[in-house]
Amino acid sequence: MSQEKPLILIANDDSIYSKGIRVLVEIMSEMGEVVVVAPDTHQSGMGHAITLGSPLRVSKTSDFGPQILSYKCSGTPADCVKFGKHQILKGRKIDLVVSGINHGSNASISVLYSGTMSAAIEAAMEGIPAIGFSLCEFGADADFSHCHDYIIKICQQVLVHGLPKGLTLNVNFPAKSEVPLKGIKVAKQANAVYREFFEERKDPYGQSYYWMDGNLENDDLNNNTDLDALSDNFVSIVPIKYDLTDYAELELMKSWDL
Amino acid sequence: MSQEKPLILIANDDSIYSKGIRVLVEIMSEMGEVVVVAPDTHQSGMGHAITLGSPLRVSKTSDFGPQILSYKCSGTPADCVKFGKHQILKGRKIDLVVSGINHGSNASISVLYSGTMSAAIEAAMEGIPAIGFSLCEFGADADFSHCHDYIIKICQQVLVHGLPKGLTLNVNFPAKSEVPLKGIKVAKQANAVYREFFEERKDPYGQSYYWMDGNLENDDLNNNTDLDALSDNFVSIVPIKYDLTDYAELELMKSWDL
Repeated sequence: MSQEKPLILIANDDSIYSKGIRVLVEIMSEMGEVVVVAPDTHQSGMGHAITLGSPLRVSKTSDFGPQILSYKCSGTPADCVKFGKHQILKGRKIDLVVSGINHGSNASISVLYSGTMSAAIEAAMEGIPAIGFSLCEFGADADFSHCHDYIIKICQQVLVHGLPKGLTLNVNFPAKSEVPLKGIKVAKQANAVYREFFEERKDPYGQSYYWMDGNLENDDLNNNTDLDALSDNFVSIVPIKYDLTDYAELELMKSWDL
Repeated sequence: MSQEKPLILIANDDSIYSKGIRVLVEIMSEMGEVVVVAPDTHQSGMGHAITLGSPLRVSKTSDFGPQILSYKCSGTPADCVKFGKHQILKGRKIDLVVSGINHGSNASISVLYSGTMSAAIEAAMEGIPAIGFSLCEFGADADFSHCHDYIIKICQQVLVHGLPKGLTLNVNFPAKSEVPLKGIKVAKQANAVYREFFEERKDPYGQSYYWMDGNLENDDLNNNTDLDALSDNFVSIVPIKYDLTDYAELELMKSWDL
């Protein structure tokens, strides 16, 4: 970490009006110069969507007080990071991108659907150390008070150690309970499955529409997963990469008749 | 491959009205029983977005003639695969999901932004062998004629060999040219970077809006990448997985002070 205050870009997917990003801005302001670029509407489940074929609207806000440069953006979480890096902070070195704190878990395969994590992954693709933070509690008034010290500690470690190029940390916190957290576990992404179903309803005109519903079920035989850590009341950290190549399979496929 | 015709689910992101999916339906009809569930609007760049907080509309279409069961869906490419598996084909074993043929490349890091590939990855998450096909040519009237024999060959190999659980193939074709394709290369995802910029314009009311633009630049030092294969006029296949865990980094992080 240099003597200067680190420059920290913050994004999320629950929108600039969510409690989670307000808490994260407060925490990160203790560590560095904070700039916020966040969606102006809820973008949960947007995955790594980007806006193609239509332009973005971006405007300054004063939601975080006069000390914090902040912008709301009509695009996706990944758009926000792109706009923050290439337009708002053009020419400046961003030391860290943090995304969240998400209202709801992004553990296991949820990482793939998560706008919060895609904002962090987008930063990693741009060569910036990045962390996504999520709380296993959906409520708009969720209690994030037990996250503070852990977020400081994890960010400090990243600012000291750096992160290898392309790496992102997926950090999930158990919901607040009367029992204190046990600490941090570095874990693998649980190979769980959503058991989904669609509920058919009729609108007032007799036409069908469908609600998707389902439950995440953990079939992973490995017991060092993020879901195991969270259910044991640990903070989970999964180091994730955006190179999706399966290198073992790449070798095996050489025997195919192609 | 069993004696019965394989059951093949087809999705895409360019919408059910695109030429690429029409071509893919024709080709796959030679191999098995085809069912189509595809978006009713363009969903390019939607990544692994899913529809949360609002319901889906799905309706039968006759776009592919009376022999082909087909549906258009108001949701994302990943939604289409979920709906196909859990609602339309509930209780039936799907032998293969194919997505595309996409109008435009999904090589390198474009795999992360791609709705086409997310449909295929969603199938892999559901335990179904899945392949995404893309052509390096955006035009609505793109020429897909050189893809036919390769698609048959690749799908036959997958139906014979199966795919390990969680694996998806990202297949990209060079645009049609006067030179015949040289064959197939199994390659890694190129670690390229989009060099992006935003162009600011004013609307008739004096308010700013921004167009994102940029170019993909290949910084990867490895020369067995999908971009290398494509520029050498080979069909590229990257075996990809949705477990994003960086296992090497997971070990290294044990030395962190957490």
